[in-house]
Amino acid sequence: MTFDAANFRPEHFLWEFKEGVAIVTLNRPERKNPLTFESYAELRDTFRALSDAKDVKVVVIRGEGGNFCSGGDVHEIIGPLTKMDDAGLLQFTTMTGDLVKAIRACPQPIIAAVEGVCAGAGAILAMASDIRFASPGAKAAFLFTRVGLSGADMGACAILPRIIGHGRAAELLFTGRSMSADEGLAWGFWNRVIEDVMAEANALALELARGPTFAHAMTKRQLDAEWHVSIDEAISIEAEAQAICMKTKDFHRAYEAFANKRKPEFHGD
Amino acid sequence: MTFDAANFRPEHFLWEFKEGVAIVTLNRPERKNPLTFESYAELRDTFRALSDAKDVKVVVIRGEGGNFCSGGDVHEIIGPLTKMDDAGLLQFTTMTGDLVKAIRACPQPIIAAVEGVCAGAGAILAMASDIRFASPGAKAAFLFTRVGLSGADMGACAILPRIIGHGRAAELLFTGRSMSADEGLAWGFWNRVIEDVMAEANALALELARGPTFAHAMTKRQLDAEWHVSIDEAISIEAEAQAICMKTKDFHRAYEAFANKRKPEFHGD
Amino acid sequence: MTFDAANFRPEHFLWEFKEGVAIVTLNRPERKNPLTFESYAELRDTFRALSDAKDVKVVVIRGEGGNFCSGGDVHEIIGPLTKMDDAGLLQFTTMTGDLVKAIRACPQPIIAAVEGVCAGAGAILAMASDIRFASPGAKAAFLFTRVGLSGADMGACAILPRIIGHGRAAELLFTGRSMSADEGLAWGFWNRVIEDVMAEANALALELARGPTFAHAMTKRQLDAEWHVSIDEAISIEAEAQAICMKTKDFHRAYEAFANKRKPEFHGD
Repeated sequence: MTFDAANFRPEHFLWEFKEGVAIVTLNRPERKNPLTFESYAELRDTFRALSDAKDVKVVVIRGEGGNFCSGGDVHEIIGPLTKMDDAGLLQFTTMTGDLVKAIRACPQPIIAAVEGVCAGAGAILAMASDIRFASPGAKAAFLFTRVGLSGADMGACAILPRIIGHGRAAELLFTGRSMSADEGLAWGFWNRVIEDVMAEANALALELARGPTFAHAMTKRQLDAEWHVSIDEAISIEAEAQAICMKTKDFHRAYEAFANKRKPEFHGD
Repeated sequence: MTFDAANFRPEHFLWEFKEGVAIVTLNRPERKNPLTFESYAELRDTFRALSDAKDVKVVVIRGEGGNFCSGGDVHEIIGPLTKMDDAGLLQFTTMTGDLVKAIRACPQPIIAAVEGVCAGAGAILAMASDIRFASPGAKAAFLFTRVGLSGADMGACAILPRIIGHGRAAELLFTGRSMSADEGLAWGFWNRVIEDVMAEANALALELARGPTFAHAMTKRQLDAEWHVSIDEAISIEAEAQAICMKTKDFHRAYEAFANKRKPEFHGD
Repeated sequence: MTFDAANFRPEHFLWEFKEGVAIVTLNRPERKNPLTFESYAELRDTFRALSDAKDVKVVVIRGEGGNFCSGGDVHEIIGPLTKMDDAGLLQFTTMTGDLVKAIRACPQPIIAAVEGVCAGAGAILAMASDIRFASPGAKAAFLFTRVGLSGADMGACAILPRIIGHGRAAELLFTGRSMSADEGLAWGFWNRVIEDVMAEANALALELARGPTFAHAMTKRQLDAEWHVSIDEAISIEAEAQAICMKTKDFHRAYEAFANKRKPEFHGD
């Protein structure tokens, strides 16, 4: 069963697809784009399906109406959770975790284009992306502690310290406070802070979509896979990974182009 | 045997306890608060005892007289070490390492409030804390190399790179030079640099002490536990951890409060 | 077979040796010091030989003519690779990876002194060093993607995120763009940005060469070895490592000197 990117019509978010770039838009702007049980599940299924979607080269995630995502809704998520039994709770946290696993496991680079509120599971979506752009007013808050929960949500205790360092991650997760756009830039959470965040995200998405897709997927996979192995083992894995990439046509195309003083065109194979 | 925080009277440092916050004060200000064999052991035993001290919610570590801690004393520690046999040396380094293990293993968030000299084992105490505040004159130095030793002291080669990055940690550990307060802030070692460091530490300590204690303990544990596992495994562990936190009364209290547009009050259970 | 540092005459780069400091100079300045199959292999063999070179205390790597290294040459490396079979490709990537392994495995602290172009495998050489100084015009680019390859080259997906954080590393590896000297300083890639980069590198090299060599080697080893183990395990390993360092004469020399208010002189044993 292949994923039909051109005709995909999700129920709980918007989907656009053009020139290899898919744009996921969270679209309940009147409530700052909260997630629901249904949107969590549909996002998870979508990112899982992207594993086989060869025509989708890059994904951009954004929110409608000047905000990114306010996280799990108090009434639609938190209320029901307080009434669930253990099995139901674990099923829920496993599902939300599976969304992050799917974002990390799909071969496409994911770009988060963040404006305004980026809170709770919204901050996690940004964190789980590969590259993050923010507008000057963006406020990211890992605010789980504010609802009595731990910072150990959807991989935050593992991934956030690897992006911004252990000390800063600890403060954000213990206090739940907002990280300003300036802080996030200085700390390496945001790759760029810029007014027109979608223009910037689109430009990079197109650039990456025209790049060596096979090699990009290898970069993404290895960036994740090498955190918990020894440096020697990582180097050995990379020797195999890069040797495989050297068999691609894109590598040959690059050489031909450089030898002829042209700019290479990549086709992703 | 439970730890009686209200009546604890250590011999080698000061202990205050109020509103869930314990303050550990190193108090040999005439020598910039060095550590001795006895204070190492008593600190280790204290942090071990904190594992069962449910009324202690947060710990602040500070030094008296405008300095944090000058580390192991030349005459009281280094001299005797030069006369020890192998077994004695390993016993000593195991004990100092056990202090860091105890600081990391106890469930309370630890805040270091640092002024002035913060050297050797003193820098390690700050590093091993969860959140670090410094005054503008604070100087942290991992100066083991200056006494002919390696930077591999009490976990520094593991923990410091995770806070400030591998390159900066390498320079500090190879050279033993001081890190200025400005550097430490820019690098993520200090969470804040501020004149009245104890006022800031106390305010955060009270805020955290009024927070969801059970969830804070989970955050602390997971921040440490997830460094050396795969991202997928970390996400799976967090699904279990957070599902447990969703069973706490504090989570329910938060929902009730938000649903009624009140600020939640947490009781730690 | 011992390595004779004083009389070593490599074919494919320059070698100087004085006062315990070896300087490796990449010297094909007319092409910005690219690497070739031969120079890769000779560098690998040299760093392997340094494991037993007790008189070499510190190594500085630099390039001639205002540039550091332009990486694998298009004509001398990339062209031939496009004609190789699988076994040949894996042999090549294994060899380049082995160079990084050798740089990390030798006991000497390695200082990269970088001016101008620092691209591809050149950026890897800087990354694999322990301490990195750059001139204001230095441009580091992990540009593998530009030739159709992945960022998983010679350990970059493992080591770069540990130096500058996962988010910044992802951007550099996915886009292949240059990191400016200012960015690299702010991100912790460069330890210092300074006009006369060789004067600075030489000064630090001499300082380290006069330091406790045995302890430096332990610091280097532990910085690498502790990334993928638990914090408790790291602390236990360090207890053993530091207990061994406390048996060195350098530790005793330091104590004698401090007790007599002299500056210690280390001999490396």
